[in-house]
Amino acid sequence: MPPMKFCPSCAAPVAERIPDGDHLPRAVCTRCGTIHYRNPRLIAGCVPEREGRILICRRAIEPRRGYWTIPAGFMEIGETLQQAAARECHEEALARVEVGSLCAVVHVLHAEQVHVMFRAVLAADGAFGVGAESLETVLCDESDIPWPDIAFASVEFTLRRYLEDRKAGREGLHYRTFA
Amino acid sequence: MPPMKFCPSCAAPVAERIPDGDHLPRAVCTRCGTIHYRNPRLIAGCVPEREGRILICRRAIEPRRGYWTIPAGFMEIGETLQQAAARECHEEALARVEVGSLCAVVHVLHAEQVHVMFRAVLAADGAFGVGAESLETVLCDESDIPWPDIAFASVEFTLRRYLEDRKAGREGLHYRTFA
Repeated sequence: MPPMKFCPSCAAPVAERIPDGDHLPRAVCTRCGTIHYRNPRLIAGCVPEREGRILICRRAIEPRRGYWTIPAGFMEIGETLQQAAARECHEEALARVEVGSLCAVVHVLHAEQVHVMFRAVLAADGAFGVGAESLETVLCDESDIPWPDIAFASVEFTLRRYLEDRKAGREGLHYRTFA
Repeated sequence: MPPMKFCPSCAAPVAERIPDGDHLPRAVCTRCGTIHYRNPRLIAGCVPEREGRILICRRAIEPRRGYWTIPAGFMEIGETLQQAAARECHEEALARVEVGSLCAVVHVLHAEQVHVMFRAVLAADGAFGVGAESLETVLCDESDIPWPDIAFASVEFTLRRYLEDRKAGREGLHYRTFA
């Protein structure tokens, strides 16, 4: 998100100050007084599995173009986290999934994001393809996951916990914070 | 959040349009072209327990002033969900807690919010008080919870699932969507 310089309500300049009763500096309009809060944004994603293999996507867009990820993206207004995860899977890999249990919640502080990653199962037809934001997509055996070329630390964290849990026959929920 | 009328980057008017490669209308600046995304915001909260009783707060602020809630509020940038839940507990009830497992994720679509509610245990000294955003706070037996006067549907949902789980000796994760 670009820094706020002008009030989105009235176009006057904003100033950083701590509102009465608050404890953090906020962007406050110097004319209309509106306080504009800035909050972490949600990324929803999933680990889509079919017959033991995992669907991963090579990114066609920045950041990390050319690197591999699981389907994930910004949650939209009006949808649930599970719907967002399924939508991203369809957009990036043209795949329909049934979203399952929550696998990982990753706080990415420098990006001002919370990544919420679910388990998922590919629809019965197993169809997938290459969405507009992907260069290629692959249904990948565990041993073929391109670990050095994974796009984001949150994705590597999620995949490793997912695979550990699968081996152990459990479905845990895992937390991690990246400064 | 008030609707965006002017670009926070350059103060020119914004227009609602679907950017190239996108599928939803966004606020796009008519001068500098910046796309301003709007995303759901995170509320973090917890159910603080001590010796079987639950700490609840009567709200001193709108919305739902005078009604009861568990400690919860907007997640800030730079903190984790667990830290946000603990901070809100300290602000609203002057209580220190150890945050435990995730109890409920509630999508509140009309408010453009995702409520993330944890289990928690009050610190050993059991101290609590009345924070600036509360009219009163009470460590409450299950049988004394003022159900008709609970402030928000997400809080009632969380408390009911929490108590059911406690009775059953489990710590489940529960989802709900309110349109």
